Amino acid sequence: MNNLMNVLGKQSKEAARQLSQLETAQKNECLLQMAADLENNTQSILTANQQDLKQARKNGVTDPLIDRLRLTDIRIQEMADGIRQVAALPDPIGVVEKMWRTEDQLMIGQQRVPLGVVGIIFESRPNVTTDAASLCFKSGNAVILRGGKEAFYSNQMLVELMQQTLRNNQLNTAMIQFVNDTSRDTANEMMRLNDYLDVLIPRGGAGLIQQVKMNATVPVIETGTGNNHVYVDQAAQLDMANDIVINAKAQRPSVCNAIETLLVHEDIAPEFLPLLEESLASYPVALRADSKALTYLKKAGLAVEEDWKTEFLDYILAIKVVASLDEAIEHINHYSSKHSESIVTDSYQNGQRFLKEVDAAAVYINASTRFTDGVKFGFGAEIGISTQKLHARGPMGLEHLTSSKYIIYGDGQIRE
Amino acid sequence: MNNLMNVLGKQSKEAARQLSQLETAQKNECLLQMAADLENNTQSILTANQQDLKQARKNGVTDPLIDRLRLTDIRIQEMADGIRQVAALPDPIGVVEKMWRTEDQLMIGQQRVPLGVVGIIFESRPNVTTDAASLCFKSGNAVILRGGKEAFYSNQMLVELMQQTLRNNQLNTAMIQFVNDTSRDTANEMMRLNDYLDVLIPRGGAGLIQQVKMNATVPVIETGTGNNHVYVDQAAQLDMANDIVINAKAQRPSVCNAIETLLVHEDIAPEFLPLLEESLASYPVALRADSKALTYLKKAGLAVEEDWKTEFLDYILAIKVVASLDEAIEHINHYSSKHSESIVTDSYQNGQRFLKEVDAAAVYINASTRFTDGVKFGFGAEIGISTQKLHARGPMGLEHLTSSKYIIYGDGQIRE
Repeated sequence: MNNLMNVLGKQSKEAARQLSQLETAQKNECLLQMAADLENNTQSILTANQQDLKQARKNGVTDPLIDRLRLTDIRIQEMADGIRQVAALPDPIGVVEKMWRTEDQLMIGQQRVPLGVVGIIFESRPNVTTDAASLCFKSGNAVILRGGKEAFYSNQMLVELMQQTLRNNQLNTAMIQFVNDTSRDTANEMMRLNDYLDVLIPRGGAGLIQQVKMNATVPVIETGTGNNHVYVDQAAQLDMANDIVINAKAQRPSVCNAIETLLVHEDIAPEFLPLLEESLASYPVALRADSKALTYLKKAGLAVEEDWKTEFLDYILAIKVVASLDEAIEHINHYSSKHSESIVTDSYQNGQRFLKEVDAAAVYINASTRFTDGVKFGFGAEIGISTQKLHARGPMGLEHLTSSKYIIYGDGQIRE
Repeated sequence: MNNLMNVLGKQSKEAARQLSQLETAQKNECLLQMAADLENNTQSILTANQQDLKQARKNGVTDPLIDRLRLTDIRIQEMADGIRQVAALPDPIGVVEKMWRTEDQLMIGQQRVPLGVVGIIFESRPNVTTDAASLCFKSGNAVILRGGKEAFYSNQMLVELMQQTLRNNQLNTAMIQFVNDTSRDTANEMMRLNDYLDVLIPRGGAGLIQQVKMNATVPVIETGTGNNHVYVDQAAQLDMANDIVINAKAQRPSVCNAIETLLVHEDIAPEFLPLLEESLASYPVALRADSKALTYLKKAGLAVEEDWKTEFLDYILAIKVVASLDEAIEHINHYSSKHSESIVTDSYQNGQRFLKEVDAAAVYINASTRFTDGVKFGFGAEIGISTQKLHARGPMGLEHLTSSKYIIYGDGQIRE
């Protein structure tokens, strides 16, 4: 195994032990200084970012990707404000969630503790560096950040500045570490760094997530893919359904909580689909409809099997007419990636059945799927959206970066 | 990939969907019938078990292992009673643990749902079959059981009987499935059955757990190893410390919540160690002491570095004298497997520091580590003891076999 990852892992583990014992006030003070130090070094960050942008242009990177890479005064300000928001959140560590007395008269409490060392493998956007580092720090976890090569210089500078703040606070700089080697080797080694990593969180496209899932021996929290649906029930208010579908599809189609497929009850399809097509005219959304839906639409193509399975992340909407709520639920449970699903209905019974029978991280009645988000859920921040069932499911905030330990008060009990 | 595991996986996934929708009363009724059906078929179970025992003797299996394999009328009765206890536990599924209103006026509730399909790879003891199957069933999960070859016929018969009960209740028999091929291939395929398994829980020795950890691409809950300590502080009551050490070491040394190393403060060692050695005389416990401890003991050997790292699971106790609470905590955090750790002390401050600074699933003041157990913790039953930090840490009961989903009530909200 590469020496670099082992060295980083060992340092992080020691740093995690120290970080787990910090008081909330110390952590918050340090976060506020990190935010100020970022702002005060805006010029250094922009200079490092220029190096990344220059390299990206040389490599013929596309404009949207260049835009995601680019830092500006305002974006750096937003990153600093993001850190301040994390400082303002309640500290999850030390909270005893429940405590009870057992038959043996032991008092047992379940207390929140840090996970330990969190690894994050992420792609282009540099703001993930400060978001993830501040969330891990506040939740008492050491973090090892392994970003993509596109944002290498920006990420490196951001971590150096945060480490400088740690140093100024007499704290171990290994509390926030950066992998300064973006070769595939370091990613692969992180996936098998069982002696040092307590969890690995991949943040990026489906390819990265699949690669981590299939190669990691350390515990992983899978994030990301959303093949989501809105089902417009026969008892829906058409205007509400129209607004929700447009919002869920067209407000920001590149994100994981946008929808890919619309299901419409056959009784309402003749009225609803023409209305929707008219409203969608001002957005560049291409429609791919099944044969029934096609009869109510002017400018739609015919959907094929592959469309029901695809997370387009684009201005494309697949549309299917269903004969019943059962058919809608069956379609969703078969094709969805179990991220976010919504029904639009005024029927009490149909709404309750949808909530009970649809298997997904977030199931909605009468709202856009775009709300599946740590900040919108009220968690204050988000480290990602889990699409697995273990540990955390759905948007993950500070609390989901913790584990627990049982603290047990006895007075001499032994087991019979 | 082997056709068998894919077929089982697919069937289990479909069965899991049905099982997730069963009402509590249906599940309990079915569990009570399973218990009765086991008792009513005691003779068939004993006959199958005889086949395993005969094979084991032929293969020269050791007496303790034969004893773990052997079923009797009483053991079958205990298995049936275990199922009845699971039926009597509250159903975790459907519980909404918290619900809140967001800034956007969405009502969001976090509701307990089954994990889906649980895989269990386990070794010799046939009672794991009925324990695991009943816990998974009650928590709404389909289960795929892959036992060891030693208990093949017993396990197969137990699953057949439980499936017969499912059939009598017009339920899908794939809710409880048995892998009737104990080759290494089926275990390896289960570890990579990502399309169908939501979690894999290995139950057995360190070798099995390591193998699963290093090869699985499905999410795993690691169970098991306990390299545990009792630290006797200078402010300990000697009688209490003596009772706790003897209980934690000698009551049942083969289990994961027994201790392997005793740490004693140097101020109290001259008085405590001779007392302990005398009390231990009636147990066949071999002592391996560091050089300081050795001076207070008559019949101890010298401990070597390897002893601090070893989970003996036997009548062996390593003993080390420490100069301070700090040294004790440092030793524990360095060598322990983070399972169960206990301090014996009358000092308020030392007890609190131990609870805060020792990193383990269960940390005790003034009690034996032997209480780390789902039943003793009040969970009513136990599927295993997790030694990882993700998802569940410490004893796992019904609740730890669940995931959650967010159910969200809106009235037309779209995201700005």
